[in-house]
Amino acid sequence: MIYLDNAATTRITEPVLQSMLPFLTEQYGNPSALYGLGRNAKKAIEHAKEQVAKAIDAEPSQIFFTSGATESNNWVISNYDKVVSSEMEHHSISNIPVVVCLNINKMFKFKIRNTPGLVTVMLANNETGNIFDVKTLIQKAHKYGMDFHCDATAAFGKMPIDVKELDVDSLTFSGHKIHAPKGVSALYLKDPSKFRPMLYGGNQQNRLRSGTENVASIVGLGTACELHNYNPETDKLNRQKRDKFVSAIKTIPDMIINTDLENSIATTINISFKGIEGESLMLLLSQEGICVSAGSACNSGSLEPSRVLQTMGVPEDYIYGTIRVSFSNETTGEQLLTAAKAIKRNVDRIRGVSNV
Amino acid sequence: MIYLDNAATTRITEPVLQSMLPFLTEQYGNPSALYGLGRNAKKAIEHAKEQVAKAIDAEPSQIFFTSGATESNNWVISNYDKVVSSEMEHHSISNIPVVVCLNINKMFKFKIRNTPGLVTVMLANNETGNIFDVKTLIQKAHKYGMDFHCDATAAFGKMPIDVKELDVDSLTFSGHKIHAPKGVSALYLKDPSKFRPMLYGGNQQNRLRSGTENVASIVGLGTACELHNYNPETDKLNRQKRDKFVSAIKTIPDMIINTDLENSIATTINISFKGIEGESLMLLLSQEGICVSAGSACNSGSLEPSRVLQTMGVPEDYIYGTIRVSFSNETTGEQLLTAAKAIKRNVDRIRGVSNV
Repeated sequence: MIYLDNAATTRITEPVLQSMLPFLTEQYGNPSALYGLGRNAKKAIEHAKEQVAKAIDAEPSQIFFTSGATESNNWVISNYDKVVSSEMEHHSISNIPVVVCLNINKMFKFKIRNTPGLVTVMLANNETGNIFDVKTLIQKAHKYGMDFHCDATAAFGKMPIDVKELDVDSLTFSGHKIHAPKGVSALYLKDPSKFRPMLYGGNQQNRLRSGTENVASIVGLGTACELHNYNPETDKLNRQKRDKFVSAIKTIPDMIINTDLENSIATTINISFKGIEGESLMLLLSQEGICVSAGSACNSGSLEPSRVLQTMGVPEDYIYGTIRVSFSNETTGEQLLTAAKAIKRNVDRIRGVSNV
Repeated sequence: MIYLDNAATTRITEPVLQSMLPFLTEQYGNPSALYGLGRNAKKAIEHAKEQVAKAIDAEPSQIFFTSGATESNNWVISNYDKVVSSEMEHHSISNIPVVVCLNINKMFKFKIRNTPGLVTVMLANNETGNIFDVKTLIQKAHKYGMDFHCDATAAFGKMPIDVKELDVDSLTFSGHKIHAPKGVSALYLKDPSKFRPMLYGGNQQNRLRSGTENVASIVGLGTACELHNYNPETDKLNRQKRDKFVSAIKTIPDMIINTDLENSIATTINISFKGIEGESLMLLLSQEGICVSAGSACNSGSLEPSRVLQTMGVPEDYIYGTIRVSFSNETTGEQLLTAAKAIKRNVDRIRGVSNV
């Protein structure tokens, strides 16, 4: 199998799993319990908080754990009555009823400027890997008296993130995109004292996020933040692998690379092929053991073309023929070249071109 | 160690862990992905849904997975503008701003009757183990045109639960109280089509609960529903163990058993000792490797006496001296008797009575 859908979810790496296992076995205490078994769980959560904080230059007291980026994004937005997002946001932002999605260049022309509210733009796009100039947008938002939330789910580990330098008000990312388990996310809040809970209940997490903490998964997320955070050398290698893959793909006619290779994370490449169905291509590739995505996993099964690609102006005869190839540090250049050949072969096959 | 805080959280049993491990290792696909690895994850979720549904006599299409009973309870309540609960509810209900907590006998005298709304009463209490006559309350609520939600977190596995027979509108329970992992809960909805999401995002779970599913934990919950559901024979053995424990405890003077032994789950016993601090007793016991709770774990660290015990009218000179002993099917009668002796010895010690 060649797994090229790391933007959908990732394999838990061995050291992450090993760090979790004690908390799935003998260290099963409730972190709110005051005897030893409980205190061990509490300490493990505190350690994970430090690991997460360090990875984004935050303080441990600014880190909260939720069940995923969807919960984190919904929670942040539940704190605001007026929310403007870019049209490129993930559905866990754009599908929230209160959110108004606007063209990123027109966001600050919208009437809500000068009213207290929230602007939310992702750091890197989950479908294309393209990076947004969030720092400039944050400065603009603050100038207009608005807070700024950043969904860094697609970005974390693939580019440096410094919440202090960004001066972002809240930022989230997810465990299962960075080789930690599904069902856990970290949320950074610049000023937790300003925040209302979304989930009410026990005293956990400073009463801001009630519910018994998912200790094992939180520990896994902490380990992943330490081991799988952005590394410039790995990134350089990934860009070399990507460029060779892209060169091979470019030999296929009638093709557009939707990823801005000069300004994107290294590991996601979004490609549209004219006149074919991306889903058919994905299924043919899967028969050869190659996993890619047609659109984002969260939206799979939908017949609508990607809103993100529509916004980018991808032509209609290309947009349905889109696949996303997303690799990880573990993917070899050879695997990527094998995949490129298989993509070429299957695009030809769908187009009815004999390549025997 | 003698672990007697199973009402706070439980150890994941070996078969539950074994069922989870493939989904923490090689079966890491995103359940929304359409290639094999994704379909395997999807199938595993569907299987878990069937296991959960079977355990409570529901249909798989009525089962939803969330991050815990706190989320499930908050989600249900977010669907209603008027909510009445008993004073005995868990904080994940009573702390929600919209919820009005009333004496269980006065609930239906409250003005909101005949207005669309929700009544919510737990099946068994988490602190005392006492069982409420939820079936009668459900009939009353329906007579008044109100829906009924039931938090079955403390009850599941310790008494039979049949959602059809109860005719309850929604019911939830949590993985980590039944030897499945922390961070996962099942929510039964009688009519999901009537429900609004709390978390918006991707297409997961029929668009009612967005967010990539926590596959491994969902699988663990399914296994626990199959293996650790209520069993009348195990229950009988547990009651025999409990009765011997209670007999031993009753030799301690100035003590009240707050658990109604005739009408409670077998495994939770709540005991108040006159004139001592429950927390001190808990800490002394923990030094001997015996884990019990002073109040519920979710509320630990709080200096307030238990609201549940206050409501029950436990006298003030007893209420601060409360511990909760909660065992599991795996606890032996011998362990319980060792604990009873240690409790006696340490109560005497705190009271300054020499028992050498």
